[in-house]
Amino acid sequence: MNYTVVKAFGTESSNANLQLLEIKRRTLLGKDVEIDILYCGVCHSDLHFARNDWGMTQYPVVPGHEVVGKVTQVGSETSKYKIGDIVAVGCLVDSCRSCQNCKDDLEQYCPEWVGTYGGFDKHLQENTHGGYSEKIVVDEDFVLKVPDNLDLAGIAPVLCAGITTWSPLRHWKVKKGSKVAVVGLGGLGHMALKLAHALGADVTLFSRSTNKIDDAKALGADRVIISTDQNQMDSVINTFDVIIDTVPYVHDLNPYITTLNTNGTLVIVGYLGPLDPMLVTVPMIMGRKSVAGSLIGGIAETQELLDFCGKHNITSDVEVINMQNINEAYERMLKSDVKYRFVIDMKSLKA
Amino acid sequence: MNYTVVKAFGTESSNANLQLLEIKRRTLLGKDVEIDILYCGVCHSDLHFARNDWGMTQYPVVPGHEVVGKVTQVGSETSKYKIGDIVAVGCLVDSCRSCQNCKDDLEQYCPEWVGTYGGFDKHLQENTHGGYSEKIVVDEDFVLKVPDNLDLAGIAPVLCAGITTWSPLRHWKVKKGSKVAVVGLGGLGHMALKLAHALGADVTLFSRSTNKIDDAKALGADRVIISTDQNQMDSVINTFDVIIDTVPYVHDLNPYITTLNTNGTLVIVGYLGPLDPMLVTVPMIMGRKSVAGSLIGGIAETQELLDFCGKHNITSDVEVINMQNINEAYERMLKSDVKYRFVIDMKSLKA
Repeated sequence: MNYTVVKAFGTESSNANLQLLEIKRRTLLGKDVEIDILYCGVCHSDLHFARNDWGMTQYPVVPGHEVVGKVTQVGSETSKYKIGDIVAVGCLVDSCRSCQNCKDDLEQYCPEWVGTYGGFDKHLQENTHGGYSEKIVVDEDFVLKVPDNLDLAGIAPVLCAGITTWSPLRHWKVKKGSKVAVVGLGGLGHMALKLAHALGADVTLFSRSTNKIDDAKALGADRVIISTDQNQMDSVINTFDVIIDTVPYVHDLNPYITTLNTNGTLVIVGYLGPLDPMLVTVPMIMGRKSVAGSLIGGIAETQELLDFCGKHNITSDVEVINMQNINEAYERMLKSDVKYRFVIDMKSLKA
Repeated sequence: MNYTVVKAFGTESSNANLQLLEIKRRTLLGKDVEIDILYCGVCHSDLHFARNDWGMTQYPVVPGHEVVGKVTQVGSETSKYKIGDIVAVGCLVDSCRSCQNCKDDLEQYCPEWVGTYGGFDKHLQENTHGGYSEKIVVDEDFVLKVPDNLDLAGIAPVLCAGITTWSPLRHWKVKKGSKVAVVGLGGLGHMALKLAHALGADVTLFSRSTNKIDDAKALGADRVIISTDQNQMDSVINTFDVIIDTVPYVHDLNPYITTLNTNGTLVIVGYLGPLDPMLVTVPMIMGRKSVAGSLIGGIAETQELLDFCGKHNITSDVEVINMQNINEAYERMLKSDVKYRFVIDMKSLKA
């Protein structure tokens, strides 16, 4: 398979900083689109993957799955995009396209989905590499159209942080008047507040600290409940239709479950691992309450979200950085020292 | 408040056998119905409650919430029943009637619902007493009509074991072609098999032992998966739309969650307590899978179930006992030595 070589930022091992690498991009297949990357968001998963926190990383790794760019070439069989279009790529660049999940526009649950990085490119016969790079080549079926009224840096995090919270809001049918709570105010949480608010829900943020109240309200929360204050927690027992739990580390879900209304669902989107302390079934049984997980979203649903963002003028709140500052950004991300998402201006890589 | 005294079987303490007691039944209020009890099913909760396993029992206790009987008196404002009607009473005899759950026909989730036993009768100003007795007096809104084609002993367990499995089957929209699994083959499990089969689902029983295969198939299972056989478990990964988990003690849910299909839900109906070992969120997130609880069912839904049983000629498989044998029956129930529900013939109490 023919390829071109492009500049990227990545790492060869779990304990090395990210640095300049050269990677291959396949020569365009019939349905491929080549994208000149303008911006790439920085997701917690990027850091986990680079550092092999999940024990499944193969090196070298080039992270990045919140990609916004401009089409620079199209394959001979493409029909959706033309040179110059502003487009986006999220967490997926391929799937089997024939299983029931693929047929149901749920490619993210296809057993053979191919991640934007850390997946396997069957054409190049090597691992896929993500958006911390000059260019990317993706089948047009996994390329998304970006509304033309939005800030391009701000739209990048919609591709992961946005869709990860949008998909459960939609699946659990949040609408005008729904009572939604969000646990955690980071990259995912701030998008959840904006999106739930734009859907017309009554929105509550659970937070451990009072210093996020003003920000949360500016982002769309109607109120903030301090989760360490038992009186405040008691005031919202049996209240919420949907709770989007974005916290990326192990924490006790039981206090939040009691705040679900009858038939309510707490959706875990941020934490992979065992639920410690153990879930207690009593409040679940006594109110037909559910605990669920949800993973990003499908391609059609991601396009729906981008269109919704265009209509409601929603973007992520971002801090734009240069590619060369990624290692420092990772350290700050670990301390939650970002409002609310780093986005790499890819001009800095090309300079 | 005036009352009559009737014979019952109950206990004055957690470590005493059940024995003959005398209890009060209130003189009929306007909407009350007096029921001469013909049969009463024996539920695991009866035993838990008599022995104070949940630490909330007030004595004396008269268990029994699977009640079938004949109307012997009606209050002056009743409109639904007349003397001689065959009727039933389940787990609830009252609720607040004004909260959203009550308005939604979900009285079982009303914070003020009154249990058939162990609740509080605001008229008599004492605890309610259940169906291990000659007669019971219940507001007609909590009395159910029994189809006239069914065995009366066999219908009694429908009032708890039946509705506890029916409600989640209906709430999670089981229909023709749905893939349903049931964990555990006891009183609840055998009703779940019958009801899921009658709804047209493809039905699987999870069991630890091979000696239940024939019974399970006779009850409506299309197949039995031996949960201790990893090959068999692997054969049903990503399969079920709904799993009804009836197991009444702590057990590992993680192997069952992996057998849920995308969007599938495991519903806990039998076990109150912490989930040990801890639930692992990975398969939940990777397939938008849910774990939920469900408690009995509302009055309208219980009537729907009784009507469904009449139409499909469904009753519980029961072993009829005399009231005087209840203590022995409890011991056998603890060893799962019953196919599949004890039902007391209340003639034995009146003799």
